Amino acid sequence: MLALICIFPLFGQAQTITSPDKNLSMHFELKENGVPSYELTYKGKAVIKPSSLGLEIKDAASFVNGFSIQKTEESTVDTNWDPVLGEQKTIRNNYNELLVTLVQTKLNNRYLRIRFRLFNDGLGFRYEFPKQKDLNYFIIKEENTQFNLSGDHKIFWIPGDYDTNEYAYTTSKISEIPSLMKNATININAQQPIKNVAIQTPSMMKSADGLYINIHEAALVNYPAMSLNVNAAEFKLSSHLTPDAVGNKGYMQSDTQSPWRTIVLSDKATDILASKLILNLNEPTKYKDVSWIRPMKYIGVWWEYFVAGKSTWAYGTENNVKLDQDFSKLTPNGKHGATNERVKAYIDFAAKNGFDGVLVEGWNIGWEDWIGNWKEEVFDFVTPYPDFNVKMLHDYAASKGVKIIMHHETSGAATNYERRLDRAFQFMNDNGYDAVKTGYVGQIIPRGEHHDGQWMVNHYIHVAERAADYKIMVNSHEAVRPTGLNRTYPNWIAQESARGTEFEAMGGLAHEHTTILPFTRLMGGPMDFTPGIFQTDLSYYKTGGNQRVNTTLAKQLAYYVTMYSPLQMAADIPDNYNRFPDAFQFIKDVAVDWDNTWILEAEPGDYITIARKAKGKDEWFVGGITDENTRTANVPFDYLSKGKKYTATIYSDAKDASWKVNPQHYEIRKVIVDSKSNVKQFVAPGGGFAISIKEATDTETKEIKKL
Amino acid sequence: MLALICIFPLFGQAQTITSPDKNLSMHFELKENGVPSYELTYKGKAVIKPSSLGLEIKDAASFVNGFSIQKTEESTVDTNWDPVLGEQKTIRNNYNELLVTLVQTKLNNRYLRIRFRLFNDGLGFRYEFPKQKDLNYFIIKEENTQFNLSGDHKIFWIPGDYDTNEYAYTTSKISEIPSLMKNATININAQQPIKNVAIQTPSMMKSADGLYINIHEAALVNYPAMSLNVNAAEFKLSSHLTPDAVGNKGYMQSDTQSPWRTIVLSDKATDILASKLILNLNEPTKYKDVSWIRPMKYIGVWWEYFVAGKSTWAYGTENNVKLDQDFSKLTPNGKHGATNERVKAYIDFAAKNGFDGVLVEGWNIGWEDWIGNWKEEVFDFVTPYPDFNVKMLHDYAASKGVKIIMHHETSGAATNYERRLDRAFQFMNDNGYDAVKTGYVGQIIPRGEHHDGQWMVNHYIHVAERAADYKIMVNSHEAVRPTGLNRTYPNWIAQESARGTEFEAMGGLAHEHTTILPFTRLMGGPMDFTPGIFQTDLSYYKTGGNQRVNTTLAKQLAYYVTMYSPLQMAADIPDNYNRFPDAFQFIKDVAVDWDNTWILEAEPGDYITIARKAKGKDEWFVGGITDENTRTANVPFDYLSKGKKYTATIYSDAKDASWKVNPQHYEIRKVIVDSKSNVKQFVAPGGGFAISIKEATDTETKEIKKL
Repeated sequence: MLALICIFPLFGQAQTITSPDKNLSMHFELKENGVPSYELTYKGKAVIKPSSLGLEIKDAASFVNGFSIQKTEESTVDTNWDPVLGEQKTIRNNYNELLVTLVQTKLNNRYLRIRFRLFNDGLGFRYEFPKQKDLNYFIIKEENTQFNLSGDHKIFWIPGDYDTNEYAYTTSKISEIPSLMKNATININAQQPIKNVAIQTPSMMKSADGLYINIHEAALVNYPAMSLNVNAAEFKLSSHLTPDAVGNKGYMQSDTQSPWRTIVLSDKATDILASKLILNLNEPTKYKDVSWIRPMKYIGVWWEYFVAGKSTWAYGTENNVKLDQDFSKLTPNGKHGATNERVKAYIDFAAKNGFDGVLVEGWNIGWEDWIGNWKEEVFDFVTPYPDFNVKMLHDYAASKGVKIIMHHETSGAATNYERRLDRAFQFMNDNGYDAVKTGYVGQIIPRGEHHDGQWMVNHYIHVAERAADYKIMVNSHEAVRPTGLNRTYPNWIAQESARGTEFEAMGGLAHEHTTILPFTRLMGGPMDFTPGIFQTDLSYYKTGGNQRVNTTLAKQLAYYVTMYSPLQMAADIPDNYNRFPDAFQFIKDVAVDWDNTWILEAEPGDYITIARKAKGKDEWFVGGITDENTRTANVPFDYLSKGKKYTATIYSDAKDASWKVNPQHYEIRKVIVDSKSNVKQFVAPGGGFAISIKEATDTETKEIKKL
Repeated sequence: MLALICIFPLFGQAQTITSPDKNLSMHFELKENGVPSYELTYKGKAVIKPSSLGLEIKDAASFVNGFSIQKTEESTVDTNWDPVLGEQKTIRNNYNELLVTLVQTKLNNRYLRIRFRLFNDGLGFRYEFPKQKDLNYFIIKEENTQFNLSGDHKIFWIPGDYDTNEYAYTTSKISEIPSLMKNATININAQQPIKNVAIQTPSMMKSADGLYINIHEAALVNYPAMSLNVNAAEFKLSSHLTPDAVGNKGYMQSDTQSPWRTIVLSDKATDILASKLILNLNEPTKYKDVSWIRPMKYIGVWWEYFVAGKSTWAYGTENNVKLDQDFSKLTPNGKHGATNERVKAYIDFAAKNGFDGVLVEGWNIGWEDWIGNWKEEVFDFVTPYPDFNVKMLHDYAASKGVKIIMHHETSGAATNYERRLDRAFQFMNDNGYDAVKTGYVGQIIPRGEHHDGQWMVNHYIHVAERAADYKIMVNSHEAVRPTGLNRTYPNWIAQESARGTEFEAMGGLAHEHTTILPFTRLMGGPMDFTPGIFQTDLSYYKTGGNQRVNTTLAKQLAYYVTMYSPLQMAADIPDNYNRFPDAFQFIKDVAVDWDNTWILEAEPGDYITIARKAKGKDEWFVGGITDENTRTANVPFDYLSKGKKYTATIYSDAKDASWKVNPQHYEIRKVIVDSKSNVKQFVAPGGGFAISIKEATDTETKEIKKL
C-alpha cells in the first residue's frame, strides 16, 4: 500500500482530484453561504454537475451551510485483498482520496468531514461526524446529497419504497419517471411507496453519448437506506432516507459516519459489472476464523409451493393458530410439504447429484396464518410440525453427506426473531444446521419501522453477527438491498432483495429483467435468485394455471454464471431434473466461487455474457443471456491458459426454441477450444447458453472437433 | 369449589347478580340500539350508574352496539388458594359470576362475551373474544368502558401518562381535576402526558357518604394499560388505552380477552387494603417448580448515588461512550460506586446483619452517557467496569452466604435488552446471581412505543418468563403499573412503578404519599419502595444540599409493614445503620412474607396501621404511619394466639420528634401483651411506629411490665 498524505492549508476553498488513470476528475468547493458542492467529470465530460452536500439535523443546527474549509488532505491507496468468497480471488483497491474538514465557525466551530475516494471506475464519498465538544448525539432529519445529472438519461428504475425491493423494472428517460410511476408501483406484499416521486438504488443510467452511470451506496451500517428523489425536469436526483416509526431518519452518535454514496461509471457497460468499487468501500471482515464459510449449491422443498400446488408450508387447515397450542391436534390439510418422506427424497437427490444442502421451508409450526396479520408471535424457530422429525432427518442427511438448510421466516416480526435468536441458533448448532435462509415477508414489527430503516438495517447485521458467533451462514430474503456488506460479514452469504424467480410463478418476469439485475440489485452483492427452472410451462402442473417462466431452459443454465452468488439453488422440482439429465449436468458441474471473472459482453436491458474461472480449479464456465430478442453472442476464450487444449461443452437453445415456443429445446455440443478460439453463439428469443470448459483429455483432443 | 351453572334462555334482555354477602348488586342490560350497559349498587346505594361497555375496532365494525343477548350463564365459585409469597398464606376466592354472550345479528352473528364476577369486595369484568368464523385478527381503536360515578367524590389521582407512574398524588374532587391537571403534571423523565384530561389507575375515591371506591385492572396481559378519561362535569370516567407507535391500541387474535376492569369498594377503608380481588382475578401460576422463589431483604450500593454525591454509577468522565470501546481506558472519575472494596464492605455488612442480598448498581459498562439520548446500545449486561471483579465478588459473597443482586438498567431500550436477554441471564447463572433489578429509565425503544403500551406490557412478561427459565427473580423499576400478575409470575417479585423513596432525594415526598400508595399503586402488587432511611436530613452529607426525607426515623421502620413487599430494601448507607443499632434491630427482625395480615386502621391520605404474622413463625409485626398530623394510633392485639404472653418491642417517635424537628428522636420500649391488650400509640407529625412481637420468655414475663 502506497499512501501519500498532503495536508493543504486553510486558504484553499476548492480542491480537485483525479482518478489513478486520470479519466475521472472530482472537484469540491464551497458555494455561496458556505454550502459544500462537488462535481464529477469523465474524460472531460460532465457526469455530475455541481451538486450540494449536507444533512438536516433535528432540534439542532443543520450541516447544510455556513461552512468554511479548515483543511484538506489527499492520499493515494493501491492495495490488494482477497474476499472470502467472490467473483475473483484478489481484488485491487486503488483510489485517490480527498478528505475535506469543514467547520461551521458561527456554531462554535462545529465540524464535519467529507471523504471522497476516486477510483478508475467511479466515486465514493461519505459524511464523517468526528467526536467533538458540541457533537455527541444527534438525529438526522434528512440527508441532502444531490446528484445533478448532465442530461435526460435512459434509466432502469423501480419505485422508491420503504419496505420492498421486489418491483419490476421500468426503462425510460429520467423525464418520464413521474408519468410512469403509478403503473410502475405494482402491488407487492407490505409495500410502502414513497409519497413523492422517488426511485431506489442501485439506479442504472445510460447517457445519450454512451456513458453508463450507476448510483448506489456502500457499507450501509447504522443508517437508513437511501432512495433518490427525482427532479425530472432538471435531471436532479437527491437523497431520501427511510424514516423510522416517528419520522426520524437516523440516530447518530459521534464518532460516526454515513454510508458511502457511490457513482460507478464508464463508457463500457462491461466495466460497470466488473466494478469492485462498492466492495472496496466496505470494511474488511473482523471475523478471525472464516474457515467455516463456504460456497453452496442447494436444492429445496420450495418451488413446489409456488407451482405444483400439491404441497403447502402449512400443516393444518386452520386459519388461526397460536404457538402455545398443540399443533399435532390440528386438522392436517393433507398437502404439507416438509414431511419426513419428502425431505428424505430431496436428501437422496442432493446426495446423488452432489448438492451441499437441502432447504426445507414449512418445517416449523405457525404457517397456518403467518401472513398479513401484523402478528408478532408467528414462529418460534425451534418447534417442528409433527411430520418433520428433526433428529431423524439430521441423521439421515448427515449419513449422506448433505446439510439441511434451516429456514427462519420472521413474517416481518423482527422483535420476535431477535428475542428468540440465541435459542434458534443454538437449536441449529444442536441439530447440525450451519446455514439459514431468513425471511421478512410482511409489515415490520417494531410497528411503524420499515424494512429499509435504520433499525432494521441494524437488525440484519445483528443477525449476521450473532450467526457468526454460532458459525452459521445467512441468506436473507426481503431484507434491505445489499451494499457490499458481504465483505465485512462474509457469512451473510447472499440475499434476495429483488424480484426473483418466485415471481415467474406469480405473473412472470420481464425478458430483460435478468439483463438489468446485474446492473442494479447485484451491484450491492450476491443474489439468491434461485434459477434452474427446467419446466417453464407451468400448465404442466394440473394446478399451475397458464403461467409460464419467461425463459428457455438454456437461459436458466446461463443464470448460474450471469447471476453471481456463492450460494446457488437448483430451484426446480427434482423430477424435472430427472427428465433432462444431460442439461442438468451443467448445474451439477458449475462452480459457485471463482478465481476470476471476465465480463465479455453486456448491455443493460439487452444481453450479458460472462466467463468465470472456478476457484482453485482449471475449469471455466460461461453464461450468456438475451432479452426477448434473438442474438448471436460473441464468446472469446482468451482467458484460458495459453497453449492448452480445452473441451468446451456448450448448452444452447435449439434453433427452433424460444421462451414461448419449445423452451425446452436445447442442444449440447462439445468442441475443443484454446485461448485463441472464438465462438459465435446463437441465442433464442428469451434464451441463453452455458458453457463448461475443462482441459481436454488426449482422447477428447483426438475425437472432438476443434472449433 | 362449588359451581352452580344456570343458563338462561334468549328472551331475557337484562340480568342482575348479587355478591355472596348480598351487599353488592350488579345489573346488566342492553340499552337503546343494543348498547351493553351495567350498573353497580352497594347496600342499595348507586356506586356505578348505568354505564356503557364496548370497543371500537379499526377497519371493521365495532363492538359497541347492535347487540342482542344470546344467552346468559350464572355460576358461583368459593375456593381457596395459596400464593407463593404474600400477605396471607391462604386467599379465599368467592364470587358470583354472570357470563353474557352478546351477538351482533346484523354482522353475520359475530359475538362477544362479557364476564362479570361479583365478590363481596367488588366487581371485576372483562371482554372475551371467542374464536369464531368472522373474528380472527383485529385491532382495537379504543375501549369504551364507562364508570359513571354517583357523585363528585374525593379522589386521589395522578395525571394520565403513557410512560410514567412517578407523579405525586393530588387530592381533590372529581370536578376539580381539570383545573388542577397542569400543576399536577410535574416534570418526570421521559413522560408522555395524555392530551385530554385523564388520570391513571389504580384510582382511589371516597364518596361524601363514606364509600371507598377503587378502580383498576387485573391481569394486564397482551393489552395496553388503561387510563381513565375524566368527564368532570358529570363524574364520568371512561377507559383510555395506551397507543402504540402508529396509534393503534391493541393487536388481538381470538380466542382472547381484555384484562379485568376492577371496582373494589366498601364503606370501610380497611376493606380496600384487605381486598384480594385483583389477585383472585389473575391466573394461577403455570410454573411447576416455585421452590426457588423466596422473599428477600437486601441492602445496596444505591442510596449513596442519590445523596452522598461521593459515588456515581459511571466509571469514566466521558460523556460519549460505545460498548465496543475499552472502558479500562476511560478517564476514571474517581467516584465510581461499584468498586470491589465498596461492594465487599456491603457484603460484610449484609452478612453481619442477616440480609439476603446486596444490590449493586453501576457495575457494568455504559453509564457515562446512559440517559436522555434515546440510544439503543447503552448496556450489554455482561461486561463489568474494570474495578468490579465479577468472579472474585461472587466468591466473596458466596463465602459469606450473601447473594449479589444483578442490575439491568435498560435505559428504555427494550429491544436491546431482549436481544441480549438470554446471554444476560446465562451470565447471571454462571456467576451465582438469582435476582435482578430491571430498570426502564427513558424513552422506549422500539421508538414510538410507550412504557404502558401493549408491546411493553408483553415485554415485561416476557422478561419474567425468561427469567423463570433461568430461575431468576425480577424486580422491575419504571415498568407498567402492576395488576396482580405476581400471582401468575411469582418470580416477578416486586415492582417500583410509582414515586418511591428516590424522590425523597429529588424534591421529597408528600407526608401523605405513603398513606395513599397502599390504596393506589399497591392495589396492583408489591412495591420495591426502598424504605429505611435513617439519616433523613440530607444536609448531613456535604453534597446533599438542604433536601430532607420528609419522615421521622420511626416512620421509616413502619414502612416495612405498611408497604407490602416480599422484597424489602434497607436503603440507607450502612454507616447510618451503625449509628442507630437499636432501631436497626427492627429492620433486621422484620419478616417479608406472611401467614396473615390485619388492616387495623386506615384512611387514605391520613393514616394506616397494619399488623402481620410472619410466615411459618409465631412472630407478629405492626406498622403505623400518619401524614403531617400527629395522632394516636389504636393498636389491638386480638390476632395473637389466645392465652399466651408476648413481648412487644415498640419503636416509636419520641414526644419531641417530627419529620422536621428531631426526626431521629425515637423511643424503644418493651411491654408484655396478650390477645386482649390494646395500645394507644402516639405518632408524631410525619411519624410512625413499628412493633415486633414474639412469645415472651419466662424472664421477660417476669421482668417486663404488662401493658
